[in-house]
Amino acid sequence: MADRTHHTLGALATLVDGEVEGDPTVGIAGIAGITDAGAGDITFVAQRKYLRALKTSQASAVILDRSLPADRPAIRVAQPYQAFATLLTFFHPRPQLQPGIHTSVALGQRVRLGQDVTLFPFVTLGDDVSIGDRVVLHPGVCVGVGSSIEADTVLYANVTLYDRVAVGRRVIIHAGAVLGADGFGYAQGSDGRHHKIPQVGGVRVEDDVEIGANVCIDRATLGETLIRRGSKIDNLVHVAHNVEVGEDNLLLAQVGISGSCRLGAHVTLAGQVGLRDHVQIGDHATVIAQSGIAQDVQSRTVMSGTPAIPHNLWRRVQAATPRLPELLRTVAALEERLATLEARQIGVERE
Amino acid sequence: MADRTHHTLGALATLVDGEVEGDPTVGIAGIAGITDAGAGDITFVAQRKYLRALKTSQASAVILDRSLPADRPAIRVAQPYQAFATLLTFFHPRPQLQPGIHTSVALGQRVRLGQDVTLFPFVTLGDDVSIGDRVVLHPGVCVGVGSSIEADTVLYANVTLYDRVAVGRRVIIHAGAVLGADGFGYAQGSDGRHHKIPQVGGVRVEDDVEIGANVCIDRATLGETLIRRGSKIDNLVHVAHNVEVGEDNLLLAQVGISGSCRLGAHVTLAGQVGLRDHVQIGDHATVIAQSGIAQDVQSRTVMSGTPAIPHNLWRRVQAATPRLPELLRTVAALEERLATLEARQIGVERE
Amino acid sequence: MADRTHHTLGALATLVDGEVEGDPTVGIAGIAGITDAGAGDITFVAQRKYLRALKTSQASAVILDRSLPADRPAIRVAQPYQAFATLLTFFHPRPQLQPGIHTSVALGQRVRLGQDVTLFPFVTLGDDVSIGDRVVLHPGVCVGVGSSIEADTVLYANVTLYDRVAVGRRVIIHAGAVLGADGFGYAQGSDGRHHKIPQVGGVRVEDDVEIGANVCIDRATLGETLIRRGSKIDNLVHVAHNVEVGEDNLLLAQVGISGSCRLGAHVTLAGQVGLRDHVQIGDHATVIAQSGIAQDVQSRTVMSGTPAIPHNLWRRVQAATPRLPELLRTVAALEERLATLEARQIGVERE
Repeated sequence: MADRTHHTLGALATLVDGEVEGDPTVGIAGIAGITDAGAGDITFVAQRKYLRALKTSQASAVILDRSLPADRPAIRVAQPYQAFATLLTFFHPRPQLQPGIHTSVALGQRVRLGQDVTLFPFVTLGDDVSIGDRVVLHPGVCVGVGSSIEADTVLYANVTLYDRVAVGRRVIIHAGAVLGADGFGYAQGSDGRHHKIPQVGGVRVEDDVEIGANVCIDRATLGETLIRRGSKIDNLVHVAHNVEVGEDNLLLAQVGISGSCRLGAHVTLAGQVGLRDHVQIGDHATVIAQSGIAQDVQSRTVMSGTPAIPHNLWRRVQAATPRLPELLRTVAALEERLATLEARQIGVERE
Repeated sequence: MADRTHHTLGALATLVDGEVEGDPTVGIAGIAGITDAGAGDITFVAQRKYLRALKTSQASAVILDRSLPADRPAIRVAQPYQAFATLLTFFHPRPQLQPGIHTSVALGQRVRLGQDVTLFPFVTLGDDVSIGDRVVLHPGVCVGVGSSIEADTVLYANVTLYDRVAVGRRVIIHAGAVLGADGFGYAQGSDGRHHKIPQVGGVRVEDDVEIGANVCIDRATLGETLIRRGSKIDNLVHVAHNVEVGEDNLLLAQVGISGSCRLGAHVTLAGQVGLRDHVQIGDHATVIAQSGIAQDVQSRTVMSGTPAIPHNLWRRVQAATPRLPELLRTVAALEERLATLEARQIGVERE
Repeated sequence: MADRTHHTLGALATLVDGEVEGDPTVGIAGIAGITDAGAGDITFVAQRKYLRALKTSQASAVILDRSLPADRPAIRVAQPYQAFATLLTFFHPRPQLQPGIHTSVALGQRVRLGQDVTLFPFVTLGDDVSIGDRVVLHPGVCVGVGSSIEADTVLYANVTLYDRVAVGRRVIIHAGAVLGADGFGYAQGSDGRHHKIPQVGGVRVEDDVEIGANVCIDRATLGETLIRRGSKIDNLVHVAHNVEVGEDNLLLAQVGISGSCRLGAHVTLAGQVGLRDHVQIGDHATVIAQSGIAQDVQSRTVMSGTPAIPHNLWRRVQAATPRLPELLRTVAALEERLATLEARQIGVERE
């Protein structure tokens, strides 16, 4: 630790707009999770259940909200996770890139490049592409004809944008993602063969969206597939043609959204959820992992299962399901006892 | 709209081999879906259920089959979807590519290139690769040693073909797809470790296949993994080693097919379906979304669930399932009432 | 077959450390599966159930373990699959690569390259990258700043390693895989928006791991995401931040592992399995395809379903489930009969 730069707890509190509880001169040299933290590290507790783990933590200080007790020097903030994020960046700054255009980059005609753009090796920009200020395109990125990328957006290696894909500001697209491939649309001929329906629409991604690695977002048949401001999409998600994802959604890994679905704002789809085509999901709705949604989901509901039902009901059903084999036996036994009783009853009545 | 070129309804009808109903001189400048269409647009109705939406549509004309009533000038055709596809291409022609080979392209030895090939920047062709006439390879495509691509096929950006992958005519492979990676085959040693079984077979894709973005089709252990003519594969699908996909299949997004499965013709696997290894699926069979198939599926059946059962039965089961907690209570109550009755019965008989 | 080189059965037995049963001079020119094998081929039988298929096989010889009867010249070995693997490589040797660095390769500063490295066209190595002896990087591979790849590892085309990813010896990473993208971590602000938590940790892949095509392994928030020695990961698998995959795991295609899960040694997750965050899986545990794991799994157990239950119980439940609609009717009928009986009973007692 001798080689780590120390910052006072007070200085860090100022960075995150928090208040120090305890000694503000404590020296902090790093940041770590509760169990990994050592002497000289600051850690954070966002929920009451982690207080026990804090007790045995080696951390020299802790970030907490105002409701939790501190057992060591602390920074009190309203949003511990955000303060944690700020200090992560403070202790682990991303290396500054030197803007510039590698000599290998292949530029089409009429390409517009903003200020301080970084184009890594083997980037291809098609005709009429527009690149905003401070955009970073990592190696192997391909941007199709007529596509545009606004300021401060980063595309990691081997991302593909097809023609006429529009990406907003401060968007992050991770490696291998594909935006604008043809939607899956065919007309079945009388010969039983599938004839391609041209997909002539586009894709639009609004500001502050993040898109995971190897995600696929298809272009619309007509019109556009739309990802609204602030939504976050995890790895290997599939978004079909003409889908509209609302603002501030969380789409977890391997989610699949079929054509023409419309998601409201603040929707959460947990991992491996699937949506049938043309489904509408209300604002603030949540769908539990691996569920299959075949019908519209109301706002602020939580759904589970395939086909999905309200989560509370689903939990009771799942708790009951393992008892089904036993239930079959019970009912068979009941039936037999009842038959016996009925036979006797007839006997009694005959007497 | 003043700047849009207008075509008469009669001229468009000729293009799609249809008959005009109403005024053939109506001017049409664009094509759109029912709800998006404005004045000057033509739209289409393929199914009766969309007639209601048509009533409030601004479209100036509509494409219909012969069974549905028209409330405005119409083109009557046998296959509305196909007519729609034709007019989409008419109103939104893909820009013509200028064939040519970018100076950055890396060519191996003994590469054969057909007429009018388009090789975008940063394409790599290994030794003994064969490329047919009018093939288009987008930026970053990599074609391994001894692979072949026949005429009129398009590979989008960053597609990877490993060694000895054979792709037919008029095939479309979307960005990021990987054909020919090693199948997942290991032998467990007595030490519990997994020892790789070399995957020395190939992959063959027949004519008129379309493969979605980031799809993975593994090479065979021996022999070949085969995708037959006309099948369409959506994004993020996994096809394992030695699988045979029949003609005119539809494999929806995120489907996973394990090793050595054989699919007949006209099979449809809906989104996120999984197939166990060595399963056979009969012609014209359909598997509903998210189902898991562990046994062979007969021709022309529809299967659902994990493990899958006939779809009609599955629907009844799913309708019954939420009643399971209540059923448990009902049966417990029945049991009690029956015990009471039995006790009394014994009393009665004793009297 | 005239143009195939023949090897005696005795020579092949020596290669795989086996014993010949029958004529050691039989000539063998190739290797194939039981049903595909022709005259001159050797095949193998690893399990008793394939003996019937062997009877009608055209193979000239067979590899068997010591417990199974041979109906033709045979090589007896302890591990037929491993012997099969050895002979596959013998009959289908991978073409020898000529090491070297393509002129198009983009090298950062302070890159260290080992002996006999093969760098294909359009490879990018960031600053401070370290590449071990005999490493092969196929076209379009991108290795981020400060990453390292140890000896004898192969990365296929268009693989992306972000910054500070460490890959061990004899690792195979298939095309399109992405290691080190940011984990999916956000803090929700009081405005309901999702604020990115910087992901400043790394990824480490130990020796002898194989990673499938288009797999995504995210970097840790802090610390590292870890894939231990000898694990094999199939196509399109998602491994979230801070996950630890133990030694000798098999993760089948399209598996999704949420953040901070810990898997023991010799774990098998079948296709499309999903794990909730922070779940621990014990050594030698197996999870059946499409299951969803929301709680810890004990060592040497087999789990199925969503939420998962012990596999044996799950099988009984699944067998019972299709009888649920009938059960509802049965119970309704029982209820009616019981009510009748109760009414009569009251009648009897009144008499």
